[in-house]
Amino acid sequence: MAKNVTLSNKSLLGLRTLSAEEINLILDTATGMAEVMKRPIPRVPALNGKSIALLFYEPSTRTRTSFEMAAKMLSASTTSMAMSTSSAVKGETLIDTVKNIEVMGIDAIVIRHSASGAPALVDENVKASVINAGDGANEHPSQGLLDIYTMREKKGSLKGKKVVIVGDIAHSRVARSNIWGLTKLGAKVSVVAPPTLMPAEIEKMGVKASYDLDEEIRDADFINVLRIQLERQQKGLFPSIEEYIKFFGITAERLKKAKSDVVIMHPGPINRGVELSSEVADGPFNVILDQVANGVAVRMAIFYLLLGGQKK
Amino acid sequence: MAKNVTLSNKSLLGLRTLSAEEINLILDTATGMAEVMKRPIPRVPALNGKSIALLFYEPSTRTRTSFEMAAKMLSASTTSMAMSTSSAVKGETLIDTVKNIEVMGIDAIVIRHSASGAPALVDENVKASVINAGDGANEHPSQGLLDIYTMREKKGSLKGKKVVIVGDIAHSRVARSNIWGLTKLGAKVSVVAPPTLMPAEIEKMGVKASYDLDEEIRDADFINVLRIQLERQQKGLFPSIEEYIKFFGITAERLKKAKSDVVIMHPGPINRGVELSSEVADGPFNVILDQVANGVAVRMAIFYLLLGGQKK
Amino acid sequence: MAKNVTLSNKSLLGLRTLSAEEINLILDTATGMAEVMKRPIPRVPALNGKSIALLFYEPSTRTRTSFEMAAKMLSASTTSMAMSTSSAVKGETLIDTVKNIEVMGIDAIVIRHSASGAPALVDENVKASVINAGDGANEHPSQGLLDIYTMREKKGSLKGKKVVIVGDIAHSRVARSNIWGLTKLGAKVSVVAPPTLMPAEIEKMGVKASYDLDEEIRDADFINVLRIQLERQQKGLFPSIEEYIKFFGITAERLKKAKSDVVIMHPGPINRGVELSSEVADGPFNVILDQVANGVAVRMAIFYLLLGGQKK
Repeated sequence: MAKNVTLSNKSLLGLRTLSAEEINLILDTATGMAEVMKRPIPRVPALNGKSIALLFYEPSTRTRTSFEMAAKMLSASTTSMAMSTSSAVKGETLIDTVKNIEVMGIDAIVIRHSASGAPALVDENVKASVINAGDGANEHPSQGLLDIYTMREKKGSLKGKKVVIVGDIAHSRVARSNIWGLTKLGAKVSVVAPPTLMPAEIEKMGVKASYDLDEEIRDADFINVLRIQLERQQKGLFPSIEEYIKFFGITAERLKKAKSDVVIMHPGPINRGVELSSEVADGPFNVILDQVANGVAVRMAIFYLLLGGQKK
Repeated sequence: MAKNVTLSNKSLLGLRTLSAEEINLILDTATGMAEVMKRPIPRVPALNGKSIALLFYEPSTRTRTSFEMAAKMLSASTTSMAMSTSSAVKGETLIDTVKNIEVMGIDAIVIRHSASGAPALVDENVKASVINAGDGANEHPSQGLLDIYTMREKKGSLKGKKVVIVGDIAHSRVARSNIWGLTKLGAKVSVVAPPTLMPAEIEKMGVKASYDLDEEIRDADFINVLRIQLERQQKGLFPSIEEYIKFFGITAERLKKAKSDVVIMHPGPINRGVELSSEVADGPFNVILDQVANGVAVRMAIFYLLLGGQKK
Repeated sequence: MAKNVTLSNKSLLGLRTLSAEEINLILDTATGMAEVMKRPIPRVPALNGKSIALLFYEPSTRTRTSFEMAAKMLSASTTSMAMSTSSAVKGETLIDTVKNIEVMGIDAIVIRHSASGAPALVDENVKASVINAGDGANEHPSQGLLDIYTMREKKGSLKGKKVVIVGDIAHSRVARSNIWGLTKLGAKVSVVAPPTLMPAEIEKMGVKASYDLDEEIRDADFINVLRIQLERQQKGLFPSIEEYIKFFGITAERLKKAKSDVVIMHPGPINRGVELSSEVADGPFNVILDQVANGVAVRMAIFYLLLGGQKK
């Protein structure tokens, strides 16, 4: 299913370090995996005997379960470690923890961590493949890839397409992975946020920064709506939720200004009535559940390319 | 193993909406499953490739493990989600959570939730099968079915048999599922509780309400003893544990007034010395461990009838 | 792979009650299992259809994952129960919990518990095999066996070899399992600790008690360094961490007094800079990651001998 390309790294740490060819290889491989998912018995033996550890230092249902389902469909086994109730509390260093896990016979480590760069640190210290499932405000590459896969599925090649990313750009690893991937594939990306949630010098990543959502969505092909972490609101990063909704919330009313075939995306979980109105969250514009389904296919592709195929 | 009957619903939400034929179909199917459990390798490939999510919004060892074992014996895979440390804390709605889980390739959702009606709400919003593993004070159908299976195993047809259910009737989903199922199968049901734990108008469910345990057990074939949730005692629902034990605790002394072949049941976990004396809990009358073993067989039957067989 | 010996007990509760022949049987079986681990597909069907429950009443990543990996490589299935969020909080007795788990179709129970003797109590009450994964300050037999396996792997027969165990001997189940096993195999064991962490009458176990680490390591073949539980420091069991490090910490400087081929061991997780300097933890002397890898092989051997082979 793939052309004559392979991933150059043993791990997937982010989209920043992938080439456009590597991104396309993952997306093309995911297309085949999506077909596996539709079979009556959605299982292939590709990774039979491989063991994958899921190390989540931050809570997650969606992402952990998606990786778990992807592994099972490829016949790999998984072992989950919620790291708050474990050795982490005994003061062991991250490097010691992962080296220990590796020698038990683990082939890949999926890691989510609050510290940017933690997966890269792990990657340098183990022979196993490392898959970044979100590190601080740095990257969440499998989310970026599933977003891009979904965009490509809906509108074909991303060359010249306009993607508006709206929300807490400053703290979003999803935004960052989207930006790296989309710009490599030739999309035009605008990021929209309140000034307090817009990182300095974001334009250096090759995007346009804007504070005017209504202006930006006018010719958008996709609007990728980030989750507002309400717990941050206490820190006073924006004046009030009401004001946020007024200027940055995606409502049916606001979408009247957009193209009739604009596609609304969200990484979930949704705060209904905040970043998305319920009408939009349940409406015909959004592809949120497609994103979730595609997430399994994309993660299958990642596992397959890193652990299976020609490489081992 | 089954007659020409199938379940009419894609989900199992309660015994209230099942017909007597459907209940018997599940019980007959469970008999076959109990034989599978006794094999040297207790595995059949019936649900190979099926994925079952276990969503527990309330803690449970027994019930979750029982469903998990049942799935494994049918070669289905399970993914467990303890919902306190997950997206639930991020404010996602229940419907969004289950829709997301479903599209990852989940065929059935086993859900326990503190809100009565939560599984029905989920059922309306997903194509997957939903199995109620306990919702508020409403129903716990797999427990009701395993209780009835165990009664039938011990004394044959339930027609005309007398079942006394004793304890906190007002807050018990186990009581409710027992009552719906037992009355459909023609058993006579008496419920016994202190006045503060007896729901108003319970007789409308087709049972006799009584406050006199000694009177009721005289001609009982089965006594199903509910767990007293000691944490509720603080709310003052009954005067004291000592008084509860005196009037409603099942002791060897009290059982002298019952028939010599009376069968004592309990859904577990037991508060020894409260609702059951240790002598009774370990004595020849009780079938508590049979109930637990039968629980796996009944849950295998539920999974098989909803996910396997002729339906898909 | 084994001689004409089998384990005499259905369970593994400790090394105290094993004969030297039984210990050697486990170690020899583990050698075969270590070869399975190195295969491209490290799976054998030996325990296909067997179900193993992992009951951890104390948190653990390392040990739980090691048992889980061992089970998977033998094709057994596992179900994990972190017992703080479960029936334990509902007041059920340990014996009731394990009897319930057993009748669901569980073949072996791996249990970690803060109470010494808990696994033995379980063993008396179930037909399933019970494997002690650490009970209070009593024993941690799989850790003892993997330590001894690693020693044998590095230097052959343990007869006459000198092992120094240093640290909190009084509270260490690892120390106790090491002592029972090593003395049965003919090793000379010295235990070194501050007076407050040295149990009274430890010499009755057949070891030498010493307070002088520098003296003891001079002719040591192995130094097994116990973990200092820093949370105990508040109880004032030793004057200060600085003083502990000075007299009992293993540093490169101190190791100059030891033999050039001394082997440093640690059960993990390591407190770097406390019981081991980072230089030693990462240095050529230590075999800590070998211990972890061998732990999986040793646990495979334990499962295989208790659940598979000629016995069932």
